[in-house]
Amino acid sequence: MTTTLSELNTCPLPAFVDTLRGIYEHSPWIPERAAEQRPFATVTALKQALQAVVTQASRDEQLGLIRAHPELAGKAAVRGELTAESTGEQAASGLNLCSSEEFATLHRLNADYNAKFGFPFILAVKGPTGKGLSRQAVIATFARRLKNQPAAEMAECLRQIHRIAEIRLNELLAVQLPYGPRIMQWAEELAQWSDDADGLTCAYLTQAHRRTATQLAEWMRAAGMQVTIDAVGNVVGRYPCDAPEAKTLITGSHYDTVRNGGKYDGRLGILLPLAIVHELHARGEKLPHHLEVIGFAEEEGVRFRSTFLGSNAVAGRFDMDLLEAADAAGVTMRDALVAAGHDPAAIPAIARDPAGVLAYVEVHIEQGPVLLERGLPLGVVTAIAGSSRYLVELTGLASHAGTTPMTMRQDAAAAAAEIVLLVEQRCGGVPALVGTVGQLQVPSGSVNVVPGACRLSLDIRAADDAVRLAAVDDILRGIEAICARRRIEFALEPIVQAAAAPCAPWLMDQLGAAVERQGLPRFDLLSGAGHDAMAMAALTDVAMLFTRCGNGGISHNPLETMTADDADLAAQVLLDFLRGLRRP
Amino acid sequence: MTTTLSELNTCPLPAFVDTLRGIYEHSPWIPERAAEQRPFATVTALKQALQAVVTQASRDEQLGLIRAHPELAGKAAVRGELTAESTGEQAASGLNLCSSEEFATLHRLNADYNAKFGFPFILAVKGPTGKGLSRQAVIATFARRLKNQPAAEMAECLRQIHRIAEIRLNELLAVQLPYGPRIMQWAEELAQWSDDADGLTCAYLTQAHRRTATQLAEWMRAAGMQVTIDAVGNVVGRYPCDAPEAKTLITGSHYDTVRNGGKYDGRLGILLPLAIVHELHARGEKLPHHLEVIGFAEEEGVRFRSTFLGSNAVAGRFDMDLLEAADAAGVTMRDALVAAGHDPAAIPAIARDPAGVLAYVEVHIEQGPVLLERGLPLGVVTAIAGSSRYLVELTGLASHAGTTPMTMRQDAAAAAAEIVLLVEQRCGGVPALVGTVGQLQVPSGSVNVVPGACRLSLDIRAADDAVRLAAVDDILRGIEAICARRRIEFALEPIVQAAAAPCAPWLMDQLGAAVERQGLPRFDLLSGAGHDAMAMAALTDVAMLFTRCGNGGISHNPLETMTADDADLAAQVLLDFLRGLRRP
Repeated sequence: MTTTLSELNTCPLPAFVDTLRGIYEHSPWIPERAAEQRPFATVTALKQALQAVVTQASRDEQLGLIRAHPELAGKAAVRGELTAESTGEQAASGLNLCSSEEFATLHRLNADYNAKFGFPFILAVKGPTGKGLSRQAVIATFARRLKNQPAAEMAECLRQIHRIAEIRLNELLAVQLPYGPRIMQWAEELAQWSDDADGLTCAYLTQAHRRTATQLAEWMRAAGMQVTIDAVGNVVGRYPCDAPEAKTLITGSHYDTVRNGGKYDGRLGILLPLAIVHELHARGEKLPHHLEVIGFAEEEGVRFRSTFLGSNAVAGRFDMDLLEAADAAGVTMRDALVAAGHDPAAIPAIARDPAGVLAYVEVHIEQGPVLLERGLPLGVVTAIAGSSRYLVELTGLASHAGTTPMTMRQDAAAAAAEIVLLVEQRCGGVPALVGTVGQLQVPSGSVNVVPGACRLSLDIRAADDAVRLAAVDDILRGIEAICARRRIEFALEPIVQAAAAPCAPWLMDQLGAAVERQGLPRFDLLSGAGHDAMAMAALTDVAMLFTRCGNGGISHNPLETMTADDADLAAQVLLDFLRGLRRP
Repeated sequence: MTTTLSELNTCPLPAFVDTLRGIYEHSPWIPERAAEQRPFATVTALKQALQAVVTQASRDEQLGLIRAHPELAGKAAVRGELTAESTGEQAASGLNLCSSEEFATLHRLNADYNAKFGFPFILAVKGPTGKGLSRQAVIATFARRLKNQPAAEMAECLRQIHRIAEIRLNELLAVQLPYGPRIMQWAEELAQWSDDADGLTCAYLTQAHRRTATQLAEWMRAAGMQVTIDAVGNVVGRYPCDAPEAKTLITGSHYDTVRNGGKYDGRLGILLPLAIVHELHARGEKLPHHLEVIGFAEEEGVRFRSTFLGSNAVAGRFDMDLLEAADAAGVTMRDALVAAGHDPAAIPAIARDPAGVLAYVEVHIEQGPVLLERGLPLGVVTAIAGSSRYLVELTGLASHAGTTPMTMRQDAAAAAAEIVLLVEQRCGGVPALVGTVGQLQVPSGSVNVVPGACRLSLDIRAADDAVRLAAVDDILRGIEAICARRRIEFALEPIVQAAAAPCAPWLMDQLGAAVERQGLPRFDLLSGAGHDAMAMAALTDVAMLFTRCGNGGISHNPLETMTADDADLAAQVLLDFLRGLRRP
């Protein structure tokens, strides 16, 4: 039984509520309240309206919604009391086929979870590619979420309910996603090529990396693009328009990964425009500008510790001295390039002539929780934060924990603790400024020894360089004062100083308008992470579109995830943007 | 040219000043002011009086005293402008025989040191055994002290000046130290037996440990004692008195060490009474009680992680279940004992009958800076602090340092930082209470990742159990509040809960009186470290005499040091105490 958006927009209220009854489990009040906003321009707008009702509901109503759901493989399932939708969804993960051990584990998890949170565990068991999550994955997610704080877990349950509703609504409206599922499937296939047996690691010029490049080139060719793999390893697919004198819009991202990374970081920004071209080519549609989709060979810096190798080459900023850098095994970049069949001397020729380039636009998974917590699939990036990084080494005096009076101590860890809190305090409360102490260690610390040394890292980022530099200045002066007061010596090693890259307002506006045409609010956010767009900003105007990152916003981790629906929306937005793109 | 204390006590003031002119370099004002306190009961009292003049002098006078000293191997030495004393002392370290590289190093160190502190580096180049420090040791000490804070370094220079004055005064008065040099020499010889090629490690029942026991037994026998090595490895030397029905005073300490430990920790408490018995035996003197000197086999817990094995056996508290504990190589304690020729089944029989024991008195290096900073060679211990130790594991959420807004973080390191400062704040300002976070680590932390986990240790000690438990309670509740506010989970693993062991006032008073009879003030202090006396307190009344620890009070470290003079004084005090000991 399917229906259409126009039927939903025009039918009487009771029919609207009745048709959507199964979307949110046992909670007709949700479509009832959303109905006031009819007509909906898009299915996305309908989904957002339903979600907004839940967000604006009282806490009791939200709890009621959560509690209206059955336990996974719980008693209701055994007694056959699930809604038809739940029965089908639980079966998709084979939860009806659990072994007795798995049943026992789920039973214990359900009991512990209920005891901790007072509501049932909810999980959209359909995975990113549309297949059901495996029972093992369900159990692992269950165990992980059991550790959450109650407020965070309640929010996560509501997000899972929205995701379940989205899947159900797609079925009800027979929604076709022309891009999303293909993108997710490609990401899955690409992740098979890894340097490690478990997890996904794709470091510059390894066998897995070269196999990934070949695969991307194949898909690009199949999508009707002119393909080259350039001297630095970038996979470049060109989809020319009919006007030879037109400029080129470049899009893309990197295909290398961090160690044990996620499947979407970087790759989404290559596969998504590739899926668009695949569709355009199939129906013979051309764009008003030439389009280049670049799979940048290197962004993460895993193998040679130098980042943005691919995009720097395209931007004409590749540092040829790096060719002599060696990896952990002593292989130089030059030798690695030659072994991969590349001609290092040809790298400078990769640089594009800025005159021929219209702009650079990059789609990337957010790698953070902002869109997720706001319930928004997409965001327009305002700038890529500049960053300052330091390693700090504190030297006090190691002494006996029992025999050194508190007043006589030179405790390096206590100084470090003050610094951690100083960074937090100085960067908190300032918009678009973040500060992190990610490394913190008392080397060979003992329970009964006052720490004589402590090492820590500083990472300060901001959209505005002046804001960042002022914070760095305050923090360094604070460290000096803390160490002087505590009779601690400190050594500071600067490791990164990178200026912020602001996105071009004209690109942001046209991206934002395309977002709004999908029935979504335009939401602007800062990119705290570095991206190829940062390097490309040296060549041309840049913009970025962020997609929502699941699992609490986790990235650089196998738990990084996103939905086919969000990928599809981002593709619709990018295509709409590309079709209408005009330099003002 | 020597003189005597009685001559100094009775000669006219100018003669007094003139005789002592060379003791403090170019600073006759020091003997001038000290002269007012004549007559001095002991040489120790004279030394203390001279030191007190310096301590009470103005900062300018103190600086003047320091600046009156020549640089080590400096221009004055080259030009032959040193005092006779300085020339001889510098030659004892072979500083007149420096290679040109060593001269260059010393020259640079002198320049850097002067630039930082504004006064010359001063070091008593005579080592603990009376021989000159090697040039290498001098250079290493110089480099280390160059890192000190100015106030600490000025205090250190004054202490070195006092030590130089002490050595000069000993020569002037032809002071004989009957015990100190022998104790220091024995400690040096004993340190040759080590599990490691560099440094001193003597873990339970290793070859070095057994060789150490054999050596101790030999020396005890040579000192006229009846010697046994018992079933747990304790080396027991008995020096009976003439009254068979008399009770036994037990003294001693442990001969095992931590990894890369010091030469005096534990061993001083065995060698010092051994040196006394050596003298008593030589002149045929007996004590009013039987004396047992015990070298306890194990106190540090390095090999089997269980501490006080030797003293617990003597106190009748040896836990026989420990025999099944295995070391890192999988060898059980039972097998290690058997391999060393011991009969584990005989351990319970080691327990002494409390009825036959008068008391337990232990001499130990302080392992802290209290006596050093007060300029006192000896202190009477009031109690051995009780301790509570925990390992704390904090779990937040690892997330991207660039993309996670400050308000959305669950930063485990920031929570740890608050805990470190809470411990410091709660334990600071309360007398005889100390709190330490000695281990602190973000496991596999990255510069650009918000810490998802942090591990730390807590070590809370106090003389008074109620004070300690109240602090622990406040700290644990504080951790709970910090973690709740920050949405961090924590797990707490208690690893030690030990009650305080107060020293017996009657023993403290008799020890204190003996200290005063040496011309020193009685100074009472808490032992923050655990000692065999803690275990022996289960058997009998206990007391401890602490000796001053050099090098800023550092211990459990090869830099642990003390002087032959302090060892000699402690021996004089212990012998005086033993001769007069009466249970009231």
